[in-house]
Amino acid sequence: MGQVEQKLHALGLVLPAPMRLPAGAALPFPWVRVFGNRAFISGHGPLAADGALARPLGKVGTDLTLEQGYEAARLTGLAILASLKQALGDLDRIEAWLRVFGMVNAGAGFNRFPAVINGFTDLILEVFGPDAGAHARSAVGLAGLPFDIPVEIEAEVAIRGL
Amino acid sequence: MGQVEQKLHALGLVLPAPMRLPAGAALPFPWVRVFGNRAFISGHGPLAADGALARPLGKVGTDLTLEQGYEAARLTGLAILASLKQALGDLDRIEAWLRVFGMVNAGAGFNRFPAVINGFTDLILEVFGPDAGAHARSAVGLAGLPFDIPVEIEAEVAIRGL
Amino acid sequence: MGQVEQKLHALGLVLPAPMRLPAGAALPFPWVRVFGNRAFISGHGPLAADGALARPLGKVGTDLTLEQGYEAARLTGLAILASLKQALGDLDRIEAWLRVFGMVNAGAGFNRFPAVINGFTDLILEVFGPDAGAHARSAVGLAGLPFDIPVEIEAEVAIRGL
Repeated sequence: MGQVEQKLHALGLVLPAPMRLPAGAALPFPWVRVFGNRAFISGHGPLAADGALARPLGKVGTDLTLEQGYEAARLTGLAILASLKQALGDLDRIEAWLRVFGMVNAGAGFNRFPAVINGFTDLILEVFGPDAGAHARSAVGLAGLPFDIPVEIEAEVAIRGL
Repeated sequence: MGQVEQKLHALGLVLPAPMRLPAGAALPFPWVRVFGNRAFISGHGPLAADGALARPLGKVGTDLTLEQGYEAARLTGLAILASLKQALGDLDRIEAWLRVFGMVNAGAGFNRFPAVINGFTDLILEVFGPDAGAHARSAVGLAGLPFDIPVEIEAEVAIRGL
Repeated sequence: MGQVEQKLHALGLVLPAPMRLPAGAALPFPWVRVFGNRAFISGHGPLAADGALARPLGKVGTDLTLEQGYEAARLTGLAILASLKQALGDLDRIEAWLRVFGMVNAGAGFNRFPAVINGFTDLILEVFGPDAGAHARSAVGLAGLPFDIPVEIEAEVAIRGL
C-alpha cells in the first residue's frame, strides 16, 4: 500500500466503488485522461460508497445547506481519488495538484461557493499535504449540473512515470 | 490530404468557413493558442457552413430540444476542427485530445448536459478514434452564453511538431 | 524594474495590494500554483487599490452596466498581475499567456460576456503585446460568483525558469 493510501486508511477514509451511471446515461469518455506527465480529470460528482450518486441531489442554498454542500465536495474528492487510483495504479504517482475547477449547483441567492468547495480542498490537503496538495482553484455557481448533482469538480495533476 | 481529413471526407463531413462575427462584436484573441506541444482552444460555438452562427439560438431544454442541442455540439466540434486546421496546417498534428469543457446554455429545469455534449464527443471519437480522441470532459449548465449560442466548448490538445 | 513593470508604469497602471478577504472567508489555496514551466492562476475578482473587493458588486446587465463590467474585468487583470508578481518575483518571467477563462456574473437577459472580458484581454495585450499576450479564451455567463463579484477570471501562463 502506497503512502497516500496509508494516509487515507489512517484518516478512516474509504474510496467509493466506480460510478454506477443512472439508467439511460452514456458517458463516452474516460474519468481520467493520462498524457505524458499530466492527468486531466473529468468533471466528477459526489458518490456513495457503492458508486451510486450521493444524496441529497439539488441546488446548494435551497435543496442543500452549505454544510451538505461541503460534504458533497468532500465526497467528490474521494470519487476523484478512486478514479485516479484506477487510472494511475498508485496514488503516490501524483506529484502535484495543479488546477481545480469547483462548480456548485447554485440555488437562488446563494454565493458561498468557496466555502462549499473547501470540502474538496481540505480533503486534498489532509491527504497530500501542503506541498503536493496545493492547487490553483476557482469555485463558482453553475446554472445546472448533470443529474442535479450539487457539486462537480474537474482538475489537472502532475504525475510521475511508472 | 492528411489522414484526419480523409476520415472527415469519408464521413461526408465538411468544415465550416471561419466564423463571421455578428455586427459590432470584437474578439481580440486567437481561436487557437499554440505553445510548445499544446494547443489551447478558445470557446467555440456552432457554425453554419458559411461561418455564420448556426440556428436555432437559445437555451437547450426550452428554445432547443435535446436533439437540437446534440446537433449544436456536433457543429461546434466541426468549427473547432476548422480552427485547428487553420492554426496547425494539418489536423494530423493532433496527437491526443486531453481536456474538453462543454458548456450548455441551460434552460430552466434542464439537466441532460452530458447528452448534449455527446454530440461533440461522438464526432471526435468518430474522426480521431478511441486512442487519440479520448478526452477528460465536463458537461455543465451555464446561465448564459455569448450571442445566445446554445453550446460553447473549449478544449486542450497535445500536438506534434512540424 | 523589469520590462513588464516598466510598461505598467508607463501606462500609469498600479497593481493592487494583496486581496483582503471578507470577514469569515477562508481560502485555503494559493492564488498562483507554479509547477515547472507553468503557472496556474486561481479565479480572481476585481480589487480596489487597497486589496478590498472593488465596487460595485452584483450581476452585469442588471446591477452593473456593460462598461462597469469591462472595468471590473480590467481590475481583475491587475489583481492577477499582482498575484503573478508575488508568485514569480518578476513579471518578465511570463513567456506566454495560454488560456483565459472569463466568467461573468450574468444578469437576466444579458449575453455580452465577450465585451465584458475584453477589459481583461485589452489590458493583457497592452502590457504584454500581441505575441506573449495572445491567449485562448472563453467568456461566459455564470449563475453566481463568490461574494457577488461581477467578474472572475482564471488563467494559465507559460513561464521561464529563474
